[in-house]
Amino acid sequence: MRKVSSAITPVITIDRKARTPFHRQIYDGYCAAIMGGMLRPGQRVPSTRGLASELGISRIPVLGAYAQLLAEGYFQSRVGTGTAVSLSLPDQTVFLDARRAPVPTVRRSLGSIAKHASLPDGVENAPWHRGWGPFGVGQVAFDQFPFPVWNSLVTRHCRKISPKYLDYSNPLGLKALREAIAVYLRTARGVRCEAEHIMIVSGSQQALDICVRALLDPGSRVWMEEPGYRFARSVFGLNDCQVVPVPVDQEGLNVFAGIKRCHNARAALVTPSHQYPLGFTMSASRRLQLLDWAEGSRSWILEDDYDSDYRYENLPISSLQGLDRHSRVVYLGTFSKVLFSSLRLGYLVVPPDLVNRFRAVRLAMDIAPATFSQAVLADFISEGHFSRHIRRMRMLYSERRNALVNSISAEIGPGFEVTGSEAGMHVCVIRDGIRDREIAARAARVDLSIVPLSSCYAGERRRQGFILGFGSTPAADMSNAVRRLRSIPGGPAKPVPRKADN
Amino acid sequence: MRKVSSAITPVITIDRKARTPFHRQIYDGYCAAIMGGMLRPGQRVPSTRGLASELGISRIPVLGAYAQLLAEGYFQSRVGTGTAVSLSLPDQTVFLDARRAPVPTVRRSLGSIAKHASLPDGVENAPWHRGWGPFGVGQVAFDQFPFPVWNSLVTRHCRKISPKYLDYSNPLGLKALREAIAVYLRTARGVRCEAEHIMIVSGSQQALDICVRALLDPGSRVWMEEPGYRFARSVFGLNDCQVVPVPVDQEGLNVFAGIKRCHNARAALVTPSHQYPLGFTMSASRRLQLLDWAEGSRSWILEDDYDSDYRYENLPISSLQGLDRHSRVVYLGTFSKVLFSSLRLGYLVVPPDLVNRFRAVRLAMDIAPATFSQAVLADFISEGHFSRHIRRMRMLYSERRNALVNSISAEIGPGFEVTGSEAGMHVCVIRDGIRDREIAARAARVDLSIVPLSSCYAGERRRQGFILGFGSTPAADMSNAVRRLRSIPGGPAKPVPRKADN
Repeated sequence: MRKVSSAITPVITIDRKARTPFHRQIYDGYCAAIMGGMLRPGQRVPSTRGLASELGISRIPVLGAYAQLLAEGYFQSRVGTGTAVSLSLPDQTVFLDARRAPVPTVRRSLGSIAKHASLPDGVENAPWHRGWGPFGVGQVAFDQFPFPVWNSLVTRHCRKISPKYLDYSNPLGLKALREAIAVYLRTARGVRCEAEHIMIVSGSQQALDICVRALLDPGSRVWMEEPGYRFARSVFGLNDCQVVPVPVDQEGLNVFAGIKRCHNARAALVTPSHQYPLGFTMSASRRLQLLDWAEGSRSWILEDDYDSDYRYENLPISSLQGLDRHSRVVYLGTFSKVLFSSLRLGYLVVPPDLVNRFRAVRLAMDIAPATFSQAVLADFISEGHFSRHIRRMRMLYSERRNALVNSISAEIGPGFEVTGSEAGMHVCVIRDGIRDREIAARAARVDLSIVPLSSCYAGERRRQGFILGFGSTPAADMSNAVRRLRSIPGGPAKPVPRKADN
Repeated sequence: MRKVSSAITPVITIDRKARTPFHRQIYDGYCAAIMGGMLRPGQRVPSTRGLASELGISRIPVLGAYAQLLAEGYFQSRVGTGTAVSLSLPDQTVFLDARRAPVPTVRRSLGSIAKHASLPDGVENAPWHRGWGPFGVGQVAFDQFPFPVWNSLVTRHCRKISPKYLDYSNPLGLKALREAIAVYLRTARGVRCEAEHIMIVSGSQQALDICVRALLDPGSRVWMEEPGYRFARSVFGLNDCQVVPVPVDQEGLNVFAGIKRCHNARAALVTPSHQYPLGFTMSASRRLQLLDWAEGSRSWILEDDYDSDYRYENLPISSLQGLDRHSRVVYLGTFSKVLFSSLRLGYLVVPPDLVNRFRAVRLAMDIAPATFSQAVLADFISEGHFSRHIRRMRMLYSERRNALVNSISAEIGPGFEVTGSEAGMHVCVIRDGIRDREIAARAARVDLSIVPLSSCYAGERRRQGFILGFGSTPAADMSNAVRRLRSIPGGPAKPVPRKADN
């Protein structure tokens, strides 16, 4: 058990008017706290001097109570570490019962819990989302992150902390970071923005939630790419919006199919740079069609510029937001993929006349982002480390992608269609007729994290295949990982589809 | 203007099939980016070698384009700093126009924006929320924070970072922090909990938002203390819940008045330790009444244990959650007041059978909290620094509170009722008949941040007065600050209420 400092003062109530003497009240208080599981074996208690001072009473009754508790085996005392709750309590069974059920678990009718929101339970519980094996989607080359540089910026900011810095920051985020992002987005992504249109968020999930709360109503219909990103669907579910799946082809979201299904949807969520999961890049003509539709129907485009920094065959394509002349696009970005996900930093670029609306929503949600990591990241970007890191990673991922694509063709053969290898950190291998979920569950058992393509669909017409991330697997290990994948029963080794084994 | 690294590669599109030569395409690309405001004066551009490599072309056409751009004054070059966009552009006016309106601001009908949520615009825009003067509510003694200890923990964790640490963490938060908080809450607050019932959040605002999304529906009615915390009201507005104001007296929320107004409200939000803004502590009998009502009507109690750590006259009172035998209480806490607010860390204690529900809501909202600051805080608590800091601050704030209460009685006299001085970091001075908002606006102009009491009411029956925070004002400066307050026209100096001056 973790050693806990004695400094936490337990709730011992002293009633000055009661007839019970103080030493007895203290003794009773400790017994109740220990029996109730509030104080645990091994946990240190305050010194007699400290407790007397906290209670504002003389030390004598405290000394008496402690002596009694020590004598009866509730407390133990050792030189140097002070007094603690005994590791072998006299009434162990009573204590353990209390510990097992510290709060009564009452079965209650669901009636009193929120009925409205539909949450896809178990999204993260799918077996393929566990583990750290090869092919995990969104796993980056964590070991390549420039820790020495980052840590030196952290240390520098520790020294710079001023009192003012500790108070709530702007709900839009730290100005220095918004300025650094604005320069980056204008230059590298063709986004039309100023720092005052940017809001720092905790990642693209929160970015999407803020958009939905600011722009949509319960019951609003939203185009989502089919197949698409499952975690995005949970945001729409939480906000009672209705997802309209719109098919994706090699040019990206099929705008005419969307218009046919629901011409007046209130919004469309797209990943134009590298569609998740198929990996296609939205063509210029589709981009213009989508913008035309949005302007005509007064709908919103939520542009998740996922994976935009890593293109291997052509230059990055300018964002939809940069083409938009009618302020219909909200641009979402995250640092989870280019830096690391536990940083929890991303951003929104909001049309100027909506900034106040978004700001009010954000303020009601969680007031403002934490300051420290924003300050570190601002320097990381503006001092050039960010772009250097992206350039290095682009070369590294290009190698890893080549290794994966070559291994697939060498080890698995032409039975699978491979899509999306021009950009990003994953490819999609498609083969209809296989049982991709069963295979993925089996793969997870041998520590291979492959997402089944069919799990990315909302509708009934589903293609089968796997999404293979290559970010965290060194090029030299790739062919071995693909061979392991091939050996999964029912997996991609088999040239003809067949029933799964069990 | 901030110097920006040359490392960001601009979106310059090269069409290999076009008849326009490469050098001309590059020249045109830069002109368009500069005129469109994507590249700004002073911003560095990549070296010719770097750009040629990014574009995958020979360096010759890039050299040609750069020479032209330099000759025409779009670029400037200096030894050592490389090439940058010129600070004095040939076509300055065109550029400036583009800069001023980089995105067209289209007036649009409100029809396409979310209609459902009622957000109290301007909560944070009130003049008394600005500035850093004395009396700011929630301002802590920032300069007393143990920076050397904190920074040494930060440095230690920088060295400990492992790749695994950079991936998404548990939606409930870091286990080490949840364990440290569980020990603290059981011991110091009498909360019945284990680490697995605790969710780390970004503060009490997000904690409340998660509760509402997990437990309530649009249209659900909620008891709120009247007067109460305005920022909490904005969460209910955002989620379309209906606030039922329930009056507060010296024993806290008047449960019978609540039952009379709306016996079947779905939830009640209370601040039992130190009611905001009046500062009263909820009595034991009211606590039991509230728990009885919640059990009988199957409603939820949201216990915001605001300011519970600082009590000056008695010991801390055990939490409502600790008295609850039917799992009706969700417990909310924050580190904003005991450490600092830009840390953005707080916690929820959730009844065991609701943990999965809360977890799914959290995952859909923003996936998980950032890891680094959680790891630092876990050590800060478990190594005893947290309790030591609280003990030091309790003494310091006790001094500051005494200084404020004494100054009020010496400088302002008995015309004002002072409430809530037994605990927390603010007192409330009440005097009906004054124009508290006007006075507060005037005070803000001379850098005194006093919140008018009447602004804390949702209903029409409002009392007047001021909420005076004493956390950030040294005891020695207090009497001077109170004298400055007294000198505000219409302010607390005047013994009889009168019309405001303007």
